[in-house]
This record gives sequence, C-alpha cells and structure tokens, in this order.
Amino acid sequence: MDNFVFHNPTTIDFGTGKEQQVGQHLADHGIKKVLLTYGSERIKRDGLFDAVTKSLAAQGIAWVEFGGIVSNPVISTVREAIAVARTHQVEAVLAVGGGSVLDSSKAIAAGVLHDGDVWELFTRAATIKAALPIFSVLTLAATGSEMNSGAVVTNEETREKFAIGSPHTFPKVSIVNPALMQTVSRDYLVYSASDIIAHSIEGYFTAKVQPRFQSRLVEAIIKTVIETTETLLADPTNYGARAEFAWASTQALNGLIYSGTAGFSYPNHMIEHALSALFNVPHGAGLSVIMPAWMKWYHGRNPEQFKRFAEEVFGLDTAEQGIAALEQWFDKIGTPTRLSQLGITEADLPATIDNVLGNAKWFGIAEIYTRDVVTTILKNAL
Amino acid sequence: MDNFVFHNPTTIDFGTGKEQQVGQHLADHGIKKVLLTYGSERIKRDGLFDAVTKSLAAQGIAWVEFGGIVSNPVISTVREAIAVARTHQVEAVLAVGGGSVLDSSKAIAAGVLHDGDVWELFTRAATIKAALPIFSVLTLAATGSEMNSGAVVTNEETREKFAIGSPHTFPKVSIVNPALMQTVSRDYLVYSASDIIAHSIEGYFTAKVQPRFQSRLVEAIIKTVIETTETLLADPTNYGARAEFAWASTQALNGLIYSGTAGFSYPNHMIEHALSALFNVPHGAGLSVIMPAWMKWYHGRNPEQFKRFAEEVFGLDTAEQGIAALEQWFDKIGTPTRLSQLGITEADLPATIDNVLGNAKWFGIAEIYTRDVVTTILKNAL
Repeated sequence: MDNFVFHNPTTIDFGTGKEQQVGQHLADHGIKKVLLTYGSERIKRDGLFDAVTKSLAAQGIAWVEFGGIVSNPVISTVREAIAVARTHQVEAVLAVGGGSVLDSSKAIAAGVLHDGDVWELFTRAATIKAALPIFSVLTLAATGSEMNSGAVVTNEETREKFAIGSPHTFPKVSIVNPALMQTVSRDYLVYSASDIIAHSIEGYFTAKVQPRFQSRLVEAIIKTVIETTETLLADPTNYGARAEFAWASTQALNGLIYSGTAGFSYPNHMIEHALSALFNVPHGAGLSVIMPAWMKWYHGRNPEQFKRFAEEVFGLDTAEQGIAALEQWFDKIGTPTRLSQLGITEADLPATIDNVLGNAKWFGIAEIYTRDVVTTILKNAL
Repeated sequence: MDNFVFHNPTTIDFGTGKEQQVGQHLADHGIKKVLLTYGSERIKRDGLFDAVTKSLAAQGIAWVEFGGIVSNPVISTVREAIAVARTHQVEAVLAVGGGSVLDSSKAIAAGVLHDGDVWELFTRAATIKAALPIFSVLTLAATGSEMNSGAVVTNEETREKFAIGSPHTFPKVSIVNPALMQTVSRDYLVYSASDIIAHSIEGYFTAKVQPRFQSRLVEAIIKTVIETTETLLADPTNYGARAEFAWASTQALNGLIYSGTAGFSYPNHMIEHALSALFNVPHGAGLSVIMPAWMKWYHGRNPEQFKRFAEEVFGLDTAEQGIAALEQWFDKIGTPTRLSQLGITEADLPATIDNVLGNAKWFGIAEIYTRDVVTTILKNAL
C-alpha cells in the first residue's frame, strides 16, 4: 500500500427533505449572500427552486440567480458567472443541479478569487490559492462532485476538456436527497451508472499498487450500481435503490477507493473527454462506449485483476468473459457501446485521435497512449 | 436507507515515516505547546518517542509528557492528565499509542475545557461543548479511534465502562504508520482482529435499516481482516498486510459503514464492557468470546442477514455454518471463544449479569437484553 493523505472535509446531508436545510447550512457558515447556480429552468417547475430559496429566505440569506449551465459545461458560462458573482459581491456559491452545475460552481468559486482568466487554473498556468465557500443540492448522482474537490469544464474555443482540483474546492456541505432524483430520465440514469463504474475501474485496473481491500470496496460499488440500476429501470420510484445508487456514486470518487493505491491513470476519461469536447456526447454515454473497447486492448497488461473483476463482479472465470459481461450489461440497460450509436463514424477518428493525444499529455500518460494505441482502442469501439 | 449526516473532518496521514511529520501538522494548526500522552515506556526504547519529539522540536513546539495510560483506560488517569494539562496550559493533546491512549486523550481534551468533573461527560450529566485540538500517532490498529469522535473509559470506582462522542473530539490529524505496528504482539494482533470484526458486525446484524451497499462494505472489511490477520500471523513484517489491516480498521468505525443504517445497537460491546470493567480482560479477547455466543442467541431474529454473512464472508450456506466458521476462525488465530479462557467461571456470572444490565440502560437496549437473555448469552459463552 502506498503512502497517502486522506482528508475529505465535506459534510453530506443525505435524505428526504434535506434541501429544506440548505439555508441553515449556509447560515452556519456565516453566509449572507450567495450565487445560486443551476442548469435548466426545470427546478423552477418542479418546486426545488422554491424549496431552496424559501430555506435561504428563512435565514435572511440573499441570493443572485445564475441559470443556464449546460451538460458538458463550458468555460464561457463560468466566466459569465464569475462576472455576476463579482458584481453582486456574493460570499459563496450554491449549486443546485448535477455534476455540470457543481463542477461549474467550483470553477466559479475559484475563479472569483483568481486575478487572471479562470481557464489558467485548468491549463495549470496558475494554481488555485482560494475559493468562495461552495454548497450544493445534488439532483443527479453520477460524478461524485458533491464530495470531492474536482471540476471538469470544456473550453469550447480550444476544444479542450480539462479539470481542476484543490483543497479549496471541496463543497462545505452537499445535500443529497435521492427523492429529487426520481425524475432523472432513463437515459441519464444509465449514463450515470456508466460514469460511476468508470470512476471505480480506472484505478482498479491501472494502478501499479492496488491493495485487495480497495479492490473489494470498488467491487462493492460496482455490484451496488448494477443491482440498483436494474431495480430503478423497473421502478424509478424505488427510494432505497435510488439512495444506494447515490451513496455508491459518492463513494466512487471521494478519495476512499484511491487511498493507498499508486501509479494509476484515467485513460477512459482521457479518451471520453475527446468525445464530449468534439461531439458533445453525454459523458456517461461516451464512457460506456470507451470502457469495453479500452478493456479489450488493456486487459493483457493486468490479467489477474481482470480475472478478479470477472469473478467478483459477475461470477465468471476469465478476463474476456468479464469484459463481455460488462459490455452486455451496458447493452441491456441501454447505454451505448459503439461509437456509431453516438453518431461518430470512422471518418471522425482522425480528429478524435488528435484530441485524445492532446489530452494524453495533460493526463500524463502520453508515452503509453500513442497514436497507434489510441487508434486501436477507438477502432475497437466502432 | 435512512437519512443521515456524514462529516468526518479528520486528516489521516498514512504510511511509512509519517510520524516525522507530526510537528508539521501541529504547526499547521498553530500549536505551540502540547500534552504528549502515551502508555508504557516502550515508545522510549523503540525510538518512536524520539522521532515524535524531534519532529515537535523542529517546529519549536514545546511538550509536556504524560505517560502510563493503561489498556482499558481509567478515569482517574484522565483526571490526573487534565490537571497536568491545566497546570502547563497546553494548547493541544498529542496521543502516541493505541486506542486506550487515543480515547484517554479525547477525554483529556474535552475534560480540560469542562468546568465540572470529566466523568460527567460520560454519564451524560453534562455535554461536551469544546475540546482542545487532538492529534495522534497510532501504534495499534483496532479501535478506529484515530478517525472518529468516540472514547471509551472505565470508572474504576463505579465499575462502569462508558463512552463519549462529540463533533469536538475528532482528531485533527492522525498519523497511521503500519510499520510502527510490526512489533504488536501476536495476542494483540488477534484481539485487534476481533475488535474490528465486532465494530463491523454490530450494525450489520442489528440494524432495522441495513442497505445492501453498506453490507458489502462491511464484508469487504471483514474479508480483509481475516486475510491480512492470517498473513501477519505467518509474517509479522508483511507491510502490505499490516497496512490493509490498519486501513480496514479505520474504515470499520469512522461512520462510513453506519451511514444510512438505522435502528442498530451495540449488544456485543455492551456485554463485553462488563468483562473489561470487572475482570480487566483485553477488549478484543472479550469480544471474540461474546460474539459467537451472542450470534447463537440472536440469529433467528435476522435470518437473512446471517445467511448472507455465511455466504459472503465464508462461502457457506446457512446462518449456523457462518457462526461456526467465525468461532472456528477465532479459535484458529488464537483469540478466546470461551469465558473460561478469560478465567471467568459460572460463579462470576451473577456479578457479570448485573453489570451488563447496568450497561443495557446506557446502551438503550434494556428492553431486549433482560436478565434472562443476558444469562442465556453468557451461558453460551461458558
């Protein structure tokens, strides 16, 4: 096991009705004025916006709205929000939404206190030295952003999808009410399942140091995601399954399963970020296409762990059977497993490969993911 | 899944040589003078005391020593330490040791800032409103005290073994260097294994709401403890096994596996605390006696979960087989499974039962654990 430091200061307030506590949480942190960020206007129709603002008003907290954050969020929107935050001199950012809103809000919170352009924090031209306090009310369980410091945003001019992370960008409090997720569409449920599995397996398969205990935690998450996704496809109102799905999602990317592991990388995310950046495909849909394709290329490099995956997750014997079972499960739940299902054809590969190779430098794995290798993986996914 | 709030602010600095960072951690928190608590003088012989104080000195941090904390720590020692802490006006408590030293240090840290007698915090006559910052260097992985807010101390006059817990008593930073644990005796290794398993199963078997995901996390911990204990009995210097054992121990009682569960209780701890309080038996040794005896009485109340335990942990079919397998495993590793191995005979039962019934009120399960029931369980353990 490798040396590590584990510190996750985020408070998770989990359960039914917890969005009504958001004002109290902000008040506990001394916040008087907040930027309330969100995506579509749906939260105004379904009552969540009212519940949140009522909770803020009850504590005498003023808010400034900033809506319209889209999936695969873009840096231009973050820049606009930073300007609004500065104009109104808000003291905190409250994200009401899914991973895109949360990630954007982290970038906003850090960007407000950064002297230069916020994209410098993503290219690593500058580091995050401070951020406004971040709070969130989660409406989609997938990215784990509610309990980590990371944020992924796309620069639509440069077509780069990069990430930030800092001790300053952990949410202070994230509210996770699984009942708010019952209206998530069938598509976004299965894309979310794919995303959570991707977070779980990147380290599991690629780490040079991968203790057995951490592997068991990963398998607990994946088995839970598989089981609860199937329950929710049959019955979207099953609260228990929604709750376990959400909590497993949080655990997949809050630092726990990566603690003590070493030498891991995020090749599936690296490749998928190119698909999102170029073709604006849903992140989880891109990942369910890439994962089986990547596994078919990669598994010979870590045969024991792939055999373990087959045995522990699917009760099967060989690496190849495990990979096939995962791909078949993706097919079964209805998340794509082929680039063609995303509308991406062989003619798109050269541009895609170029974008991946750009990412490879940022991800620090350009030596392994050469043009030939990336081509092989993407051809597996055609 | 039940509503819950999860917040664990402790920083774990894990790995080889990390005790050399302790001064830096205290300096990061602005500490200039600390009460350094420990148990036996062994840490002076084996170099740990020197490493810790050198690290403090390098940061210009003064320390006041308080040694002699024993296993099953007692409130009189805590009172003495509080007097020392007040005399020297220390700003923090640094525990160097195992669970007894950590638990005592939490009581000291809270007691220093409590106007009345510290035992009032244990009897719930008073609540913890503040505590000095707590830091620790862990030398024995078992109690999970390094990443939780709990502390268990015995009042040797009243023969009560009670607990405290408060948001103020989470350690700020705990250093966990598995290499420091290589000299743990064979006995204390197996007692620790028993203790970790007890932390894992109390909720697993007794919770009225026990989500499957949380059960999987528990099984990951137990399987890891079983596997690494066997490795360490064969090779005490196996760092990887020592590290996984330690990290599993931390996860067993840091709030994770209990998040979202509801209606659980700690009957095995309730009964064992009587053994420790009356006969000063090692906590883990008492637990390995009580657990199989309790399971034989209890399993019919939760047959599905006991069947699950048998299947997932031991690959067996029935509740009875799972219980027998755990008892046999305790026998195999050499932790007691009979009261007689602790020197406790049938003649000791009346006094033991009385003490357990006193605990039952404190633990809030007096209605279930009547004299008859406690007698049945203890007779199972004869």
